[in-house]
Amino acid sequence: MRDHTFSDDFRTQFDLLMRLRRDVRRFRTDPVDEAVLARCLDAFRLAPSVGLSEPWRLIRVTSAPARAAALDNFLAANADALAGYSGDRAQQYGRLKLSGMQDAPVHLAVFCDDATDQGHGLGAATMPEMRRYSVVTAITLFWLALRAEGLGLGWVSILDPDRLTRDLDVPATWRLIGYFCLGWPEETSDTPELERAGWETRRPQLAIETR
Amino acid sequence: MRDHTFSDDFRTQFDLLMRLRRDVRRFRTDPVDEAVLARCLDAFRLAPSVGLSEPWRLIRVTSAPARAAALDNFLAANADALAGYSGDRAQQYGRLKLSGMQDAPVHLAVFCDDATDQGHGLGAATMPEMRRYSVVTAITLFWLALRAEGLGLGWVSILDPDRLTRDLDVPATWRLIGYFCLGWPEETSDTPELERAGWETRRPQLAIETR
Repeated sequence: MRDHTFSDDFRTQFDLLMRLRRDVRRFRTDPVDEAVLARCLDAFRLAPSVGLSEPWRLIRVTSAPARAAALDNFLAANADALAGYSGDRAQQYGRLKLSGMQDAPVHLAVFCDDATDQGHGLGAATMPEMRRYSVVTAITLFWLALRAEGLGLGWVSILDPDRLTRDLDVPATWRLIGYFCLGWPEETSDTPELERAGWETRRPQLAIETR
Repeated sequence: MRDHTFSDDFRTQFDLLMRLRRDVRRFRTDPVDEAVLARCLDAFRLAPSVGLSEPWRLIRVTSAPARAAALDNFLAANADALAGYSGDRAQQYGRLKLSGMQDAPVHLAVFCDDATDQGHGLGAATMPEMRRYSVVTAITLFWLALRAEGLGLGWVSILDPDRLTRDLDVPATWRLIGYFCLGWPEETSDTPELERAGWETRRPQLAIETR
């Protein structure tokens, strides 16, 4: 049992942390200190997980062949995505930088073990996707912990997940949640890169309906 | 553009915030100040979302019939879940308190609009589940913001999501991500309730494989 009251100053800083957390695609190539990375990875163990199932599975992608397979996968999926747009939208899409895979010093592939026995299935009977959602909460904490150290994370989802699962030789019961580029960002901002590039704008407020 | 370096003290406090964030099922019935709740809900707008799609959709469940429908839904799903266990495990499951729906002053049902045009599909072609994951990142930020105010959140996933979608009369393209109980926790802790109840223990460390 631990009681604790957080201060107004902490809440202000935490709000700033959320505002400065960005999806980063432009990285410096400087290495990331392993001790800092390890400290940030501890955030995974503090995440909520359905039934305490801790279904996150992490692969650090370091070898040249594994990185090349992931990059090829992205390039193919991105070319397919581009082919799905036309006119101005296609031109705009073609100009976007959607992954930092060629510069980021650290690459992580994060999976969900849908077949884990841990947690004895609690909370995942009617909504088995809760295991995957647990992994996403862990990634979110990790992302904030990285930003608190000045590090950036980029979430690559323009990938064929089944192909990556095969290429990285992980169990077939593992589902890819995301491929992550990690390193020192070239710049910091409180505005999403897609908004700065004119792709989309955020809504001015959160809508809440009542029942 | 905004540069900012977070302090060691902030990082220590942020680590504590993650450690004290719990899935809360035991609430005091005191009301939650609307201004505090609104401040915490702002966290949704700071979440990452694939293609800037902002696919989160929130329903505040306040009416007696809507709350009764959600509670009935939970009770039925929980009875089904209990029937799936046997022996000691069933006894243990039966003793767990798995939702604070009868006490929590604020109830929110959070959905993902899988059909939104916002974001023009960017990043969601090969992994359309990224929209749902975006909603989960927003919930995670909201959860931390609540805890920074001393408030607790409980994520109820023992529900038939399709039934709740119908009962709350939301569009069929909205997928339930979770039903949330929110209020002042009866107690605070740095240990998950399921671990304290002996249901499951967390692994001693995070395993990372390399490829």
